[in-house]
Amino acid sequence: MKLNRLESILEKMKAENLEQMIISDPASIFYLTGKWIHPGERMLALYISTRGEHKLFVNKLFPITEDLGVEIVWFDDTNNAVEILSEVVLKDKSVGVDKNWPARFLIGLMELKAGSSYVNGSLIVDRVRMIKDEAEKDFMREASRLNDLAMEKLKNEVTKGHSEKELMQVLQGIYKELGTDGFSFEPILGFGANAANPHHSNTDKVAEIGDSIILDIGCAKNSYCSDMTRTVFLKEASDKAKEVFEIVLEANKRAINTVKPGVRFCDIDAAARDYIASKGYGEYFTHRTGHSIGIDVHDYGDVSAINTDKVEPGMIFSIEPGIYLPGEIGVRIEDLVLVTEDGCEVLNKADKELCIL
Amino acid sequence: MKLNRLESILEKMKAENLEQMIISDPASIFYLTGKWIHPGERMLALYISTRGEHKLFVNKLFPITEDLGVEIVWFDDTNNAVEILSEVVLKDKSVGVDKNWPARFLIGLMELKAGSSYVNGSLIVDRVRMIKDEAEKDFMREASRLNDLAMEKLKNEVTKGHSEKELMQVLQGIYKELGTDGFSFEPILGFGANAANPHHSNTDKVAEIGDSIILDIGCAKNSYCSDMTRTVFLKEASDKAKEVFEIVLEANKRAINTVKPGVRFCDIDAAARDYIASKGYGEYFTHRTGHSIGIDVHDYGDVSAINTDKVEPGMIFSIEPGIYLPGEIGVRIEDLVLVTEDGCEVLNKADKELCIL
Repeated sequence: MKLNRLESILEKMKAENLEQMIISDPASIFYLTGKWIHPGERMLALYISTRGEHKLFVNKLFPITEDLGVEIVWFDDTNNAVEILSEVVLKDKSVGVDKNWPARFLIGLMELKAGSSYVNGSLIVDRVRMIKDEAEKDFMREASRLNDLAMEKLKNEVTKGHSEKELMQVLQGIYKELGTDGFSFEPILGFGANAANPHHSNTDKVAEIGDSIILDIGCAKNSYCSDMTRTVFLKEASDKAKEVFEIVLEANKRAINTVKPGVRFCDIDAAARDYIASKGYGEYFTHRTGHSIGIDVHDYGDVSAINTDKVEPGMIFSIEPGIYLPGEIGVRIEDLVLVTEDGCEVLNKADKELCIL
Repeated sequence: MKLNRLESILEKMKAENLEQMIISDPASIFYLTGKWIHPGERMLALYISTRGEHKLFVNKLFPITEDLGVEIVWFDDTNNAVEILSEVVLKDKSVGVDKNWPARFLIGLMELKAGSSYVNGSLIVDRVRMIKDEAEKDFMREASRLNDLAMEKLKNEVTKGHSEKELMQVLQGIYKELGTDGFSFEPILGFGANAANPHHSNTDKVAEIGDSIILDIGCAKNSYCSDMTRTVFLKEASDKAKEVFEIVLEANKRAINTVKPGVRFCDIDAAARDYIASKGYGEYFTHRTGHSIGIDVHDYGDVSAINTDKVEPGMIFSIEPGIYLPGEIGVRIEDLVLVTEDGCEVLNKADKELCIL
């Protein structure tokens, strides 16, 4: 077990008077044990308690040879896994469970009267996962360094007449060549009017002269994710396109300049949003400014107008303002930032100034 | 709403004294309403009750223009969706919920004391979904007809030197050309020793002379799935390979001949398993004989040694015995069967006799 991480979670549990918790999210179990286990429909549960009793419940179908520093309780398909888990649960105490735990397990525990009540414990784990430790910061820097390299290579491919889907294949090859673990999410490669849909799925469209080309890409390395967006133009850019581009770029920079400990997420969002609105494009910036990132490409914690939490050193999130003119063009510029003691470190170094290829 | 399907579910609920149920599985909601809604992390819930009050709770992010024949209760991200849902739940009655409903919703309901208790209601829906109605039978026939055509085309590609991964790309093109909705699952195209792993993931391996080649493929059409396996040999087959092939083929036929109403799933499994064992290969048939199929490629209900349920007219499941000799070869032959009044209709017509390409 990663003891510092476990300790942080136990401290938060104590602060909330929660003595026991069942963690089932494979990413959180990896975070705490260093081991990925993908149980499919089988039960997987890491039981932790403030009295120091921690046990990992795993189906024998998923053998573990390493010492994870936690007692493993094995079961197989002929056992009632929930019943075995219930035996360690303190009957007179509340139990925290993961927000995504399937009802069949939770109902099983309830029917066995395993705990006195059940609460959503995810927030405790998610808030600890938001603050990256030194090892995690290095993994995040490395994933973004590789993503910077991939972006430079990808830009060289933009003029070669690939469709969006073909460019995605090319990017897959680039990530493989760079030794990454592949996509951290399905990249959004939107050409022209397709760039105006922030949640676009890649098509057979080929870029035309004057198209805005959104390259929203990320790879995983060492189980940590990168995520960056650049927008380039093919051969030429209209005056309006250039205007929109410069507004988004300035919004990106203003939001980044706002980041330091104690600032609220909503203030960072406002730095980008207010600037875009002041230029008359407010209604075309249709999504939040960013999201936390780490083991999951979307970790808990949004950079949005309704998140009044304050940022703390060690948090890593995206800053990705955009302007989308339906049927016309879209521009988004995204970097990852790591909150430091007095500001932030921008993890992406790839050039983000106006680029006409 | 598909009223006959709803009625079947309500009848089973009455038989189990369950007055209300929350259905959240998108496939079950499609089954009942004809509409696919993929809510991501948002709540999606179809509340049904034996007193005739049915309501569909949907986030406004997923607009529905058709009349689904059920009242829709809309909410958005600023609402507490669980609280809105809780208002229709009868407080003094138990509530059935889907086996996969995320804990954050179930705990939300519990905290609001929405019902008197909570039970896993999935089995009721899943058992109704096992019995296909006439419209569903036609969809299943059509998906398998297209899959038969795809298999013939795919066999023509086997000798062209494709790797397993390349052959998968080819198959994707075939399915597109045939007007299907694409894969119903990632096909298993295992060559030689790779065929000996029933859960193989496709690699860059190219087939060699004498290889057994497993083609386990399926497409979706009209939201219903096909699934069929053929095993062919490249250029030649050893005597042992031929022996194994004929044993598997006979096991496939024996199991199919067993299928009729009243026979237990375990008896069908035994028909294949006992024959293979009698030929000395029992330990090399390492999985269940089949699985139910419909909207999901793996519907509820296994053809396995431990399933003592009896089959009924309208059920559709796979019959897919196999023999896997590690490091050497693998043979699996799979057809879908539809249980009729006095036997079964085999949905797959593609040739399954020994085939050396």
